[in-house]
Amino acid sequence: MNGNQFVYEINNTDLDNETLMLNESLFHTANGYLGVRANYEEGYPADYDSIHGQYINGYYDTDKIEYGEKLYGFPEEKQTIINVVDTQGIRLSIAGEEFSMFDGKVLSSSQKIDMERGFYQRSVHWISPRGHELEIRIIRMASFTVLPLFLIDYRVKLINFDGDVKFISTHSGSVKNYCNPNDPRVSATAVQHIITQEATFDGDVSVIRAKAAHSELELTSAVKNRLSVPCKTEHTVSGDVLTEELTAQSQTGDELRLLKYTVLCDERRYPTTQESALRILNEVTNTPVQELYDGQRSYLKKFWEKSYVEIDGNEELSVALCYSLYQLLQAVGKDSVSNIAAKGLSGEGYEGHYFWDTEIYMLPFFILTQRETAKSLISYRYALLPAARKQAKLLGHKKGALYPWRTISGGECSGYFPSGSAQYHINGDIAYTVVAYYLMTKDIDFIAEKGAEIVFETARLWQDVGNYMDGSFHINDVTGPDEYTCLINDNYYTNSIAKYNLIWAGKFYRMLNEQNRTEIILKIGLQEEEVAEFQRAADHMYYTYDEKLDINPQDDSFLRKEKWDIAATPKENFPLLLHYHPLYIYRYQVCKQADTVLSHFLLEDEQKYTTIKNSYEYYEQLTTHDSSLSTCIFSIMASKLGMEEKAYDYFCQTSMLDIKNTHHNTKDGIHVASMGGTYMSILYGFAGFRLKESGIWFSPFLPKSWSGYRFQIHYEDSLICVHVTQNFCEFTLKSGTPKELFIYEKAYLLKETLTVKCTGRE
Amino acid sequence: MNGNQFVYEINNTDLDNETLMLNESLFHTANGYLGVRANYEEGYPADYDSIHGQYINGYYDTDKIEYGEKLYGFPEEKQTIINVVDTQGIRLSIAGEEFSMFDGKVLSSSQKIDMERGFYQRSVHWISPRGHELEIRIIRMASFTVLPLFLIDYRVKLINFDGDVKFISTHSGSVKNYCNPNDPRVSATAVQHIITQEATFDGDVSVIRAKAAHSELELTSAVKNRLSVPCKTEHTVSGDVLTEELTAQSQTGDELRLLKYTVLCDERRYPTTQESALRILNEVTNTPVQELYDGQRSYLKKFWEKSYVEIDGNEELSVALCYSLYQLLQAVGKDSVSNIAAKGLSGEGYEGHYFWDTEIYMLPFFILTQRETAKSLISYRYALLPAARKQAKLLGHKKGALYPWRTISGGECSGYFPSGSAQYHINGDIAYTVVAYYLMTKDIDFIAEKGAEIVFETARLWQDVGNYMDGSFHINDVTGPDEYTCLINDNYYTNSIAKYNLIWAGKFYRMLNEQNRTEIILKIGLQEEEVAEFQRAADHMYYTYDEKLDINPQDDSFLRKEKWDIAATPKENFPLLLHYHPLYIYRYQVCKQADTVLSHFLLEDEQKYTTIKNSYEYYEQLTTHDSSLSTCIFSIMASKLGMEEKAYDYFCQTSMLDIKNTHHNTKDGIHVASMGGTYMSILYGFAGFRLKESGIWFSPFLPKSWSGYRFQIHYEDSLICVHVTQNFCEFTLKSGTPKELFIYEKAYLLKETLTVKCTGRE
Repeated sequence: MNGNQFVYEINNTDLDNETLMLNESLFHTANGYLGVRANYEEGYPADYDSIHGQYINGYYDTDKIEYGEKLYGFPEEKQTIINVVDTQGIRLSIAGEEFSMFDGKVLSSSQKIDMERGFYQRSVHWISPRGHELEIRIIRMASFTVLPLFLIDYRVKLINFDGDVKFISTHSGSVKNYCNPNDPRVSATAVQHIITQEATFDGDVSVIRAKAAHSELELTSAVKNRLSVPCKTEHTVSGDVLTEELTAQSQTGDELRLLKYTVLCDERRYPTTQESALRILNEVTNTPVQELYDGQRSYLKKFWEKSYVEIDGNEELSVALCYSLYQLLQAVGKDSVSNIAAKGLSGEGYEGHYFWDTEIYMLPFFILTQRETAKSLISYRYALLPAARKQAKLLGHKKGALYPWRTISGGECSGYFPSGSAQYHINGDIAYTVVAYYLMTKDIDFIAEKGAEIVFETARLWQDVGNYMDGSFHINDVTGPDEYTCLINDNYYTNSIAKYNLIWAGKFYRMLNEQNRTEIILKIGLQEEEVAEFQRAADHMYYTYDEKLDINPQDDSFLRKEKWDIAATPKENFPLLLHYHPLYIYRYQVCKQADTVLSHFLLEDEQKYTTIKNSYEYYEQLTTHDSSLSTCIFSIMASKLGMEEKAYDYFCQTSMLDIKNTHHNTKDGIHVASMGGTYMSILYGFAGFRLKESGIWFSPFLPKSWSGYRFQIHYEDSLICVHVTQNFCEFTLKSGTPKELFIYEKAYLLKETLTVKCTGRE
Repeated sequence: MNGNQFVYEINNTDLDNETLMLNESLFHTANGYLGVRANYEEGYPADYDSIHGQYINGYYDTDKIEYGEKLYGFPEEKQTIINVVDTQGIRLSIAGEEFSMFDGKVLSSSQKIDMERGFYQRSVHWISPRGHELEIRIIRMASFTVLPLFLIDYRVKLINFDGDVKFISTHSGSVKNYCNPNDPRVSATAVQHIITQEATFDGDVSVIRAKAAHSELELTSAVKNRLSVPCKTEHTVSGDVLTEELTAQSQTGDELRLLKYTVLCDERRYPTTQESALRILNEVTNTPVQELYDGQRSYLKKFWEKSYVEIDGNEELSVALCYSLYQLLQAVGKDSVSNIAAKGLSGEGYEGHYFWDTEIYMLPFFILTQRETAKSLISYRYALLPAARKQAKLLGHKKGALYPWRTISGGECSGYFPSGSAQYHINGDIAYTVVAYYLMTKDIDFIAEKGAEIVFETARLWQDVGNYMDGSFHINDVTGPDEYTCLINDNYYTNSIAKYNLIWAGKFYRMLNEQNRTEIILKIGLQEEEVAEFQRAADHMYYTYDEKLDINPQDDSFLRKEKWDIAATPKENFPLLLHYHPLYIYRYQVCKQADTVLSHFLLEDEQKYTTIKNSYEYYEQLTTHDSSLSTCIFSIMASKLGMEEKAYDYFCQTSMLDIKNTHHNTKDGIHVASMGGTYMSILYGFAGFRLKESGIWFSPFLPKSWSGYRFQIHYEDSLICVHVTQNFCEFTLKSGTPKELFIYEKAYLLKETLTVKCTGRE
């Protein structure tokens, strides 16, 4: 592995407000449990905007949803991620002057993420207005081994003066969520969700016991500062803001190091939050800090060993790719109460909700390389089944489960059902992923225990929602992934994923019966006749098809509409949803994102090659890619269809989406699904990987400007390394039993190593 | 005319809360400008619910509309009718005891509306707990000759005691709108919209100058009490509640009479509200009260002379019919800033908004009998054109005007666009009515001045919203009148009314050109080519048609859905919209109200008889009549199709809808459109009246149990009386020039009287 790819760094950052807010997201620190945005410890000038934030995955408040007109079944309240107590604050005062990037002179500065060592580092070389020169280096680490721990390791070196150095370290319960009333993608109202119950010093530990305003879920934060040199300390309690000042007399050449430990324990994981927080804080402060760093490094070593993807020949993309996988790790909740929020733990965009993109865009990475995490994510959905059954009932269904379109703990949080609850495809997406997990692992135990119940209950819903007409099974009035047409009939994507869902309900039913593992079947009262009905619906599933164009229209009326002229639309009018009324958008052939094309990727055997190719070309001209979930799928399908340059171009767009802020909203948080899409563009795109009942398939090509790429997957009991270069594709069995592989549609048996000429899709 | 039909009366009212709230609506007093609910002057017990209300047509506040997710173009704020200052309060204290229906003993009581004299009267014969016996008679009148005047004429007679009689008359600015957060048909939040600026006594006149909280529109209310006997008066000002106590020493046999004059002047009609209110109050208090009563009576005499409809042979229905027409008069705004709210001035349901039902359900009555009022209602729409052009632009259209689905002063107030702003058919409804006004009056001046501009601009919108596909002109993603399927393509109703709109734009264009009255054409830059495009779109308008069933499906996918089993649906689950999620409802063949059937009524020449008949039968089994706009249309069409009993049955349902509270929400206000539907069921239904370019058509039948019915219409320059009995139909030219009539599809010339055998639709 090339060490450089593990460092994402920028130097001499612009200090304009927009850049700062972008970097707050890009350089956030998270470990799947907690996340902290990369706000400057010392703050910005008063007139600067900032999303000053610190979050816990799955720790939420509830809030009433208001409607202009509330109809039956509209959710009464939503859950929302909480901007919890703020422990980022460290002001630095030297000889009476306060350090600020906006005062004095910044000789150099940098921000970087070290993805091998698992931390963020900020370095500044600064001269104060009165000429005091400092070197500052601040490391932030969200520990992967002690999840509630967030550490700031603040070092300052005095270059040219003697004097008092004072650290003013704050711990504040006075925090509001960020809002923007004009952007449907973030919360519309500024609310203080976290309410301090008690804020005190317990010795040199500052403790805030707080509750979420409405959900009343408790959170305790405990903070301890430790300075490397003897100092005078002073504690101040002002309402719910706790301040510790640490002052040390210092001299030129001294390096002072402040370790600020934050431990955050929420009630969903730590029933006695205060006791847990204090205990864990005590443990970590009694552990040498180097041990914590070492633990972090070795955790990441294991992670990269299993999950690496390397590119030879393009350093920028190597870093972007590595950054993507690292962000997936930072974002993913590994307990069954949390999942992956659309923005991970990097911001408040989409209010910390979990959507379908976990399954379709992010789980592939975990299923292929981090099996235990994949299992945990699916277990999260399993735990949601009771809520999903309730949602199905609320929407009038007699049986089955309907997963909420957006949620934290299970309740539907969608405030606009046409592009929310109407997206029934989420049911199929989740079932699809259970099947993928099974195909990759053959873990029938997990299927028997949890997976099959998900697939059965979602299949039941399809059975209930659809109806027969003229011999076909139709699904009416749902919305597909492309939210630029809503409440449509026979959405190709939905129908195809529903069919797969129904078929696999039957397969799992037979499998479990054969193995005499019928607990779930009995528990939910699934009958032979019901399963036969699943099969009948699948067999008669209606697929839109236009003979003349040889494409699958997105829905039954898509082709009847006028085509939107994307080229003639002013650049500033994208994304369309922020500039046109939905009624207007719905009336055109225009797509926010891949929809039919996505189905052609996930379920490629449902259509013949020409239909897939024609559809790709048809939809490509109608797709604005206003969704961050779009370009990766176009990249994968361009790969499949042999359009290598196009595939590469879409891949570059996907991998640079946040780093280059191409969607102009990375300030609200990174787009984690697009990170998953970056991974998929290489695996499913360039390498042509497919996971099928028949086994695993490859069909690699090498992008022209690269000299090679490599990755590893975990298939059944085996670890398989793949290395693609210009001339050959090399498959290595790193561990496990021999495996059959399909390479360029030919079967091979991989025993140790297997080398095949790299031909691409000729 | 039979005098009895002009009195709607109930005796010995139940005092349960539900009945009282119903009667507050049924017996409200209004004159098209102001309306006052029939709350008891002395109030109810403290634990009783009440919609204590007083309103001014078109006087509104604005309020933010909140959304769970706000998309582009969603209205930011709505207008809402204001529950203005309360001047209903008169408490009566006799010898230390307060009169209350809930105390002592009510020997008899009654409430009635006298529709010839134009007032509401409440009578009570009461004995107090201590045995004091009273006869009370209270008249309320909203003057049709002095619109800002609301009079309470309170008489009390002492039967068996001497003592002090004290009237405590209040004038309060402390008023909130009624709310019910769980019913989308009324406001969700209790808001005080009216904010007192000043509350004082000016001599014996109490004056409140108030402003609407957000719109800041001003309103002054001036109240004066005048007792018929010498008395002691006392004034109290407590915040914004002004109280006048009038105490008189009285004896057995005395009858005391308190006249409480309220004058309400709003800023939209009276720029200097306070000056106007005081001036008008001064005028009316200096007019003998009998003169006011006489004026009211003679106003109504003229009204009934032009607008009477009489039934011989069923007194209950006669009264109900009379009640309906009277309510239309009470509800209709006769200045161009106001229109007819869905609930008239009887309550706050639908927030005082004006909808399409003014045009389709209420204007026919005015067009046929009260031409000036019809003109004023259309002028209201004309005044809205700038707002409608703005709305069109907001919804992405390049030209034309799109009328707001619900509004007071022009801004779209719909908080749920799928069954709000998406109802583009309102454009066609308004244009249809302009044409109807023209056909009835041949008033080309009004067309040249205002009417044509409406028809041109709405036609432009159809041209813009539709698109050609496979040779037909399609209108996609709109909602028809039936809100149980939304955002559909080629809604038959919408397409047919759009076609009519487009055709008439061409007709008016040619007409105005021929007459050299092209001001409007030049003003809006309408070109010959554009008009040709209107015609082309009309010629190619797509009509859904199912050959096998020989019906017009409601939209392009209606027949693909399952039929809702109405018979199997529990009674308590109606109206469906309050018990099922819209997604669920949208997925079925089920109608809230007539939709295609309505088009077949309005535009009967667009389809052949069998298609109309088959459609009627098809939709009848799928229609829940959850909308109050439904049964009247089914009645009319049953009449047309010769199903006389069914027609009669639907007519009875329509005419009794409020009186029998069959929709269970008359407490929120009466259903004025259904009142119009009652009228239409007789004219268009039983009498088979049609207004066409070719002239006026009749095709009468007599409902079995009646002995006859009569009415009069104003056609062109002529007043024509129609009398239908079992054997004959008699047409009389009351004034004007001879007219050609089509009776049972045969042409006749009406010179003086014309008698035709009553055959019905054989």
